[in-house]
Amino acid sequence: MGVMEELLDLAATPADVLPQDALRMAQNSLFDWLVCGRAGQGEPLSGILHQMAQAEGGSAEASVFGLPGGYPARMAAMVNGAVSHALDYDDTHFAHIGHLSVGVYPAALAVGQARDLSLSEVVEAFLVGAEVAIRLGLVLTPGHYNRGFHMTATAGAFGATVAAGRLMRLTREQMRHAVGLCATRASGLKSQFGTMGKPWNAGIAASAGVECAWLALHGMTSAEDGLCGPQGFVATHSDAPDEAAFGAAPGFLFGDIKYKFHACCHGTHAMIEGLLALPGEQRSRVKALTLRTNPRWLRVCDKKAPQTGLEVKFSYGWLAGMVLRGMATGDDRVYADALAEDAALKDFASRVTVIGDETLSDMMAAGFVVLDSGEKVPFSHDLAAPIPQDRLQAALVRKAEAMIGQAGPALWHTLEQGGPARGLAGFVSGA
Amino acid sequence: MGVMEELLDLAATPADVLPQDALRMAQNSLFDWLVCGRAGQGEPLSGILHQMAQAEGGSAEASVFGLPGGYPARMAAMVNGAVSHALDYDDTHFAHIGHLSVGVYPAALAVGQARDLSLSEVVEAFLVGAEVAIRLGLVLTPGHYNRGFHMTATAGAFGATVAAGRLMRLTREQMRHAVGLCATRASGLKSQFGTMGKPWNAGIAASAGVECAWLALHGMTSAEDGLCGPQGFVATHSDAPDEAAFGAAPGFLFGDIKYKFHACCHGTHAMIEGLLALPGEQRSRVKALTLRTNPRWLRVCDKKAPQTGLEVKFSYGWLAGMVLRGMATGDDRVYADALAEDAALKDFASRVTVIGDETLSDMMAAGFVVLDSGEKVPFSHDLAAPIPQDRLQAALVRKAEAMIGQAGPALWHTLEQGGPARGLAGFVSGA
Repeated sequence: MGVMEELLDLAATPADVLPQDALRMAQNSLFDWLVCGRAGQGEPLSGILHQMAQAEGGSAEASVFGLPGGYPARMAAMVNGAVSHALDYDDTHFAHIGHLSVGVYPAALAVGQARDLSLSEVVEAFLVGAEVAIRLGLVLTPGHYNRGFHMTATAGAFGATVAAGRLMRLTREQMRHAVGLCATRASGLKSQFGTMGKPWNAGIAASAGVECAWLALHGMTSAEDGLCGPQGFVATHSDAPDEAAFGAAPGFLFGDIKYKFHACCHGTHAMIEGLLALPGEQRSRVKALTLRTNPRWLRVCDKKAPQTGLEVKFSYGWLAGMVLRGMATGDDRVYADALAEDAALKDFASRVTVIGDETLSDMMAAGFVVLDSGEKVPFSHDLAAPIPQDRLQAALVRKAEAMIGQAGPALWHTLEQGGPARGLAGFVSGA
Repeated sequence: MGVMEELLDLAATPADVLPQDALRMAQNSLFDWLVCGRAGQGEPLSGILHQMAQAEGGSAEASVFGLPGGYPARMAAMVNGAVSHALDYDDTHFAHIGHLSVGVYPAALAVGQARDLSLSEVVEAFLVGAEVAIRLGLVLTPGHYNRGFHMTATAGAFGATVAAGRLMRLTREQMRHAVGLCATRASGLKSQFGTMGKPWNAGIAASAGVECAWLALHGMTSAEDGLCGPQGFVATHSDAPDEAAFGAAPGFLFGDIKYKFHACCHGTHAMIEGLLALPGEQRSRVKALTLRTNPRWLRVCDKKAPQTGLEVKFSYGWLAGMVLRGMATGDDRVYADALAEDAALKDFASRVTVIGDETLSDMMAAGFVVLDSGEKVPFSHDLAAPIPQDRLQAALVRKAEAMIGQAGPALWHTLEQGGPARGLAGFVSGA
């Protein structure tokens, strides 16, 4: 049938047949995304984008993280995408190697606010857009990612376009043109990692989505099949595309979305969860630790002698000591540079052994701790294992509290109530 | 030294060492670009973008073709880029296969107006930005163009960034970041040709330029070498880049810019110019014609029986007859569908012979006409030959008159006077 037609079918999925469990995860992502946005509003990048929004001004359509008042939806989407990705603490989908909420939710929320729609419609549009982004990622990957494109930005722009277009009630032909316009508009490179360009990529995606959908709604035309046609987005941006992958898996892949609960490298999270699952009484008696992890992480997060707080985030030894000491690894502010000088952590890290193990996936960790009695207690964790909603909710709210205080639990309550997208204006603006 | 450093050197060229002949051509291009923008303001694409500018509103920084009032520079750049390319009648640089003015001038003019700079500074910034775009095109091409990227949009975005950044007085380090941001922002595909997506690509480039320069000015950072670094723009967007090409040629390549003087396929222009060079007395006595042209044009503009006005633009036979009859081939409105039914043109076309000739470049035409006396008179033309400024000026003004009437010659006079960039607001808005 072709990727474009499959995409248009997916984009038009009636709300009443969207699966409840995927919608529940989309609602979780809305909460987590909003928390990341509020927590990121004080970053230097955010200040620069606030200046741009204020300098341009314009119609008061949508709210911006950390700024009172309203801004054009296209601008709000750009600022909010970048601000919410500034801490790199937002959700990830491993199947397509990308962050979904930061590219797609800013577009959905901005259009939902501009058109005064309900939060539930925003969540539905996000879910459909995010699913498009994941599946397009499967078509593009790995030739796309390996060539140097940033999936969050590129596949994300198509997700944002579909989410925005759905909320604008585009016809099938308008949606085809919106996607075709996105094909000539989407961009984003991985070589920006480590700079403000990385979070900005998410804002670019979100803004492109609002723009392409709006233009298609008002009659703009584009290539018939901008996606998989000759010299379309897929042909120009991937060396080994897999068009059959778009529709191969049934259901909604979005359900596998993963949240970060620790403000450090994702490669350390399985170890941290494994240690946290030990009884508290045992954690306080650990004298040494042996960890097995996927070998790819050895080059990334096994820093033996971190020099800064940032480097601590990439150090199994330090992080293990912090967990056993009961420190809040979920609070970004914990990672001060002084931590790298902490004598007790340094001492404990010298008794941490890290071993590469090909039999473990990159979402798994296993090993054992040695108690003061000499007893060895095994631990393990697989991030791929689904977390029951009650535990997930508790963890998301705990993370939110660590990041933005009591506004976190209050937001959870607000979202459970539903209501209009404009009802979030106060929270987003931080007013 | 590396492309990035060469680019930054070029971007910082002091105004007083810019070559006068290149500046003269940049001034010609400003005139031609403004005329194309005014003439394109009534196109359907323009109406859609006008709606977007009006819906968003915002700071009155810069003027938009066909709309009274002021708009944010970033928005004005997008609308003006697209509107001025809507008729596809703007200038071309054959060395890098792209249109320069429609991507770079909208950014330069918008920033020049926003910051209340002089027209001469706008022209200087344009020249430097356009030169960057041409040379980056040489680095990217042909692997870039052949893969499916639209040079006008991609290389054009870097040209727009440099022009905007120069007018914003970016430091060398800020310019480096601006170019790095453009690396993750630039986009544009050839598969949009034939749709509104093509002219929009020029607007995307211009808008990206204003945006990236503004963000760098306000402290945004990006990859150190977003251009030629690992997984930078060049590596991700070209299969066979030629980094040495950036600085290989001395001087300013921009001087070779070409203008369209006939609102038909560029492949027919050499024939038209050759026929126009015949004495008027002979033109009225032509009974038959034999044309030699580069074989690549035979598949493009030798339509033997055009059915519409658009197809007449691709018909040597019809166009030859029109020239000999003294019709205004430079006026887009001449190409009505009824022309395809014109019995006299049809009859003359039957006496036109077109022959492929590998010895002619794709900018050349040669042949002979047969007069009513039976005498054969040869003609030929090479578009690559420079046109003396007085003749170029006359041709540009004649083209302008055909497109926008007396506002054309008046604009030439205005530009000769210089003055502030804001002085063009009335002409651009069409007020």
